[in-house]
Amino acid sequence: MADRITLGRYMWERIHQIGCTSIFGVPGDFNLQFLDSIFLTPGLSWVGNQNELNAAYAADGYARVKGVPGCLVTTHGVGELSALNGIAGSMSEHIPIIHVVGQTTRAMQSNHMMIHHSIGQKPDHQLYNKASVPLRFAAAELWDLETAPGEIDRVIRECVVKSGPVYIFLPLDLSAEMVDAKLLDTPIDLKPTTDEKKQAEAVDAISKALAEAKHPILLVDVLTRRFRAVEETRQLARRLGVPIFASNMGKGIVDETEEMYGGVWMGQVSSPGVLDEVKKADLVITLGYLPADTNSGGFSRKLDEATTIRIDPHEATVKGKNYSEIAMKTLLDSLLEALPEKPQHAISKPHLPAPRVPNDNDKTNLTQSYIWSNISTYLSAGDIILGETGTSNFGIYDILFPSHLQYEAQIYYGSIGWAAAATFGADVAHRELLTSSSHRKDKGRTVLFTGDGSLALTIQEIGSMVKHKSTCVVFVINNEGYTVERMIWGARQIYNDIVPTSYKHLLPLYNHPDPTNSYHRVTTKAEFDQVLKKPQIVNPENVQLVELVVEKLDTSWRLGAQLAVRGEEARKYLKEEGFHDAYGNWGLSEEAMGGTGVSWK
Amino acid sequence: MADRITLGRYMWERIHQIGCTSIFGVPGDFNLQFLDSIFLTPGLSWVGNQNELNAAYAADGYARVKGVPGCLVTTHGVGELSALNGIAGSMSEHIPIIHVVGQTTRAMQSNHMMIHHSIGQKPDHQLYNKASVPLRFAAAELWDLETAPGEIDRVIRECVVKSGPVYIFLPLDLSAEMVDAKLLDTPIDLKPTTDEKKQAEAVDAISKALAEAKHPILLVDVLTRRFRAVEETRQLARRLGVPIFASNMGKGIVDETEEMYGGVWMGQVSSPGVLDEVKKADLVITLGYLPADTNSGGFSRKLDEATTIRIDPHEATVKGKNYSEIAMKTLLDSLLEALPEKPQHAISKPHLPAPRVPNDNDKTNLTQSYIWSNISTYLSAGDIILGETGTSNFGIYDILFPSHLQYEAQIYYGSIGWAAAATFGADVAHRELLTSSSHRKDKGRTVLFTGDGSLALTIQEIGSMVKHKSTCVVFVINNEGYTVERMIWGARQIYNDIVPTSYKHLLPLYNHPDPTNSYHRVTTKAEFDQVLKKPQIVNPENVQLVELVVEKLDTSWRLGAQLAVRGEEARKYLKEEGFHDAYGNWGLSEEAMGGTGVSWK
Repeated sequence: MADRITLGRYMWERIHQIGCTSIFGVPGDFNLQFLDSIFLTPGLSWVGNQNELNAAYAADGYARVKGVPGCLVTTHGVGELSALNGIAGSMSEHIPIIHVVGQTTRAMQSNHMMIHHSIGQKPDHQLYNKASVPLRFAAAELWDLETAPGEIDRVIRECVVKSGPVYIFLPLDLSAEMVDAKLLDTPIDLKPTTDEKKQAEAVDAISKALAEAKHPILLVDVLTRRFRAVEETRQLARRLGVPIFASNMGKGIVDETEEMYGGVWMGQVSSPGVLDEVKKADLVITLGYLPADTNSGGFSRKLDEATTIRIDPHEATVKGKNYSEIAMKTLLDSLLEALPEKPQHAISKPHLPAPRVPNDNDKTNLTQSYIWSNISTYLSAGDIILGETGTSNFGIYDILFPSHLQYEAQIYYGSIGWAAAATFGADVAHRELLTSSSHRKDKGRTVLFTGDGSLALTIQEIGSMVKHKSTCVVFVINNEGYTVERMIWGARQIYNDIVPTSYKHLLPLYNHPDPTNSYHRVTTKAEFDQVLKKPQIVNPENVQLVELVVEKLDTSWRLGAQLAVRGEEARKYLKEEGFHDAYGNWGLSEEAMGGTGVSWK
Repeated sequence: MADRITLGRYMWERIHQIGCTSIFGVPGDFNLQFLDSIFLTPGLSWVGNQNELNAAYAADGYARVKGVPGCLVTTHGVGELSALNGIAGSMSEHIPIIHVVGQTTRAMQSNHMMIHHSIGQKPDHQLYNKASVPLRFAAAELWDLETAPGEIDRVIRECVVKSGPVYIFLPLDLSAEMVDAKLLDTPIDLKPTTDEKKQAEAVDAISKALAEAKHPILLVDVLTRRFRAVEETRQLARRLGVPIFASNMGKGIVDETEEMYGGVWMGQVSSPGVLDEVKKADLVITLGYLPADTNSGGFSRKLDEATTIRIDPHEATVKGKNYSEIAMKTLLDSLLEALPEKPQHAISKPHLPAPRVPNDNDKTNLTQSYIWSNISTYLSAGDIILGETGTSNFGIYDILFPSHLQYEAQIYYGSIGWAAAATFGADVAHRELLTSSSHRKDKGRTVLFTGDGSLALTIQEIGSMVKHKSTCVVFVINNEGYTVERMIWGARQIYNDIVPTSYKHLLPLYNHPDPTNSYHRVTTKAEFDQVLKKPQIVNPENVQLVELVVEKLDTSWRLGAQLAVRGEEARKYLKEEGFHDAYGNWGLSEEAMGGTGVSWK
């Protein structure tokens, strides 16, 4: 490397150093020049996307799978704003993202020049920067060459330590200025800070509470993964030897093949048997808890502070006493050192609930209950599956995963359209991991479960998959519109209809090399069984599209149950707080539940 | 109507009263209930879109054509943020838009409940509201039933008077509360305020300057249309009888069939002959001036304050003296009253430049120069054409329009992807106008000119066109990527490539009723001549898609010239201001200009 490199190159080298090797985004007038520096950075690749929102989603999917920050590049104004909803999703779900915005030159900014993409006759070019302030953890607003490398380093650290989006605003002219390449020799410190004293106190308190408890149980939630404590979580689960439950967002973090695994705990919409098991507990240890409505059975999973240990990303709370300024990962390491080698409790294996099996009165046509009861035969170790906010996720919760299956879904933020574009990014990361020997032992597929309503928002990213030779398997449930919304309100209103789409033309639109053998339309149960055995679905060599045709109001049992609970629980909660019915008529539509010929045991 | 109506219904009735009759958007958990009120409001229709960004663009296109605010509805967070770039575009381009956001209930907000679409463990549900603050003229943050109707009225007025986006944030529960229907009997005051005294002074000063001048000319720009002063502008142009020039954004506002029309004045990239004509002037009157780089030939149109009258939306400046607090429309009305009935100046008709005709060395294959030299035979009175930021717009500037042709393009904000979705909205408005006898005398078509790079971003909105039985004619230039970007930087870099797309599958994907006869692939000049004569292109009865295949680096002369000027002018400007070269290597790529076999006379 030369002694002096451009600031643009410096930024890319730093991003590459932390393990991010694929760059998403869309080119634009104010980033083209420093996009060239990507090609000068060994090991770094430009991927690109069909639009900026999709780029943000793809970077999010990449980060979830690779376990390092995802990165996207956009251009001043038009690009950065288009990506904003994707960034907000990463903020909500604690996905580390570096959003590089190519800005107008500093001279254009200082002179308030009416450069295209601006607003007004004396435009403030930093207007768009203001829009993302509440939706990021940090921003490097680069202007001065002297401080720019340090600012880049600072926000990359913040991105990792806080696990969420950060921005690098890079004026186009500044990107070409030269900095000392030696700055790259000192790695960015990515270790979270922890107050050692408070951590020791917390470890003592947790150990004591554990020793005193007769029947502790573990609730594994999603923030363990977000704050890179999956390994520690798995070790702790084995060391404790107590029953392990997962939130729906935390599903698969601890292998569901573990002996002590007891199922998905979602309050009133838990898998059958789970509530009986958790009732036995006199202590609940939550790891990385995220109690959103959609991750708690509509707030129906109740934890009593007096019998709970919460181990959260930046703090721990032991039976109500808070220990702050502690990083979860280091706390768990320290706890593992402090705990006895063998389990302290002799608790019998929880009764692992079998998934509900529906009385499906229709023997021929495909139903969602059939899909979710039978899809597990298809899944195998090493697979990464992505679920869309919609009917898909509610079905996935019933699948008992094989080991080493990673499940990703945007369950808290819940922006429909996320899943297809995130799957593209996830697959890019997955293939990087599969070709890097050290990371994964299993060969696995990237599998998307989405619906027609959601796919419509970001459908062009299927094109990116084809172009980049993805081998994703895309299951799209075609139920003629927004079925979740139909169940909430307006089952037959036209606003819940979407544009009718003939999916057989989707792969040809994007020049798929073998579209006929890669598109599969499934309308019956028998066809569903067959499609799961097709060689190209089992071992895909290019993008596979499986259209699952079900009735408009057909859904899995859990969605109906969740909606019913949601109305009921929210009403109760709000009544306690002195508010009147906040949800209005929310709740389960009888019509929706009665539409499919399916009844539930 | 009942004595008391829901607040949601009240809002829709108000929106309907000001002439907006089609609602764009995407349904979501926090707007479904009040979407129902659309169906209770006579004359109002739900249209809907494939995603929220497209909805914002469609509402923008609708507003441009109908001349009233466009309206879109989104849901809390995920929806409102997805639309944000479209809103910013409307802000930049002064398009009146009402963005209704269905928010979580007030109880959920007060309790900081972790409802999906939120951020954090004690979420602030108003976080997203903050993101749009710099990108709107006003917002009704509804909370209190008592003040809500007044707030709705206030922002609708602001939307019209300031001609730009406003927000209505409507908590779901509040939308169902009842208000007095009699409030609807008092129309919202939409008249702009004007200081009568200052206006009289301005009219005197303008009249005096006009009387003193020997050779005044008129420059018509886009803000005349945005502030609903098109009729006044046309009347003034006729009354003055002086040469009329248009900016590129102002093209078509004054009929190009007017005797005194002299062409497009874009500084150094003006149509041939224009600069000679404007040199003769000793006074320039600008109407609705918007001197962005992309609307001024890269800042190369220079106006001398001492010989300029600027009539702007909220003020006038006569030879450097400013008259503020004046609305353009009322000023023009007043000026028309003050001016003599007959033209005061006897200036001969300007020499209307013929469009440049290229020496096209390729006699067979289609080139952009051939497209833009020949497309005018296709256009006719009453057509509405939309141009995309890309190579298309630079070609359109060379077309001499028939009378009553409206041209719309997002030339200042320049967000690629806008045009396809805006065309959908524009066509909805166009059909409303055509069926309403009072508005238009001509039967016209809605015609889009876009490129493959831009269409990719919002391609799913072609589906909305098909679903809603649009009769748009969509010309898509297929030049294998971002040709404008190739000419700026990285002509052969992979970041300027896009996903190869086989357009013949696009209409079938969206269940077009007659896809074979509605898709037309054009690769030669002869085919281009033929396609323009096909009955379904001349009188479309459903969406027509015309793919125009040209070489990767082929473009119209003006784009190359603009880029060259842009570099040069910016350098000069910045040198004067004491800055060094802000544009770096920007300018015309020789490779790009040499790629097509076309040279210019």
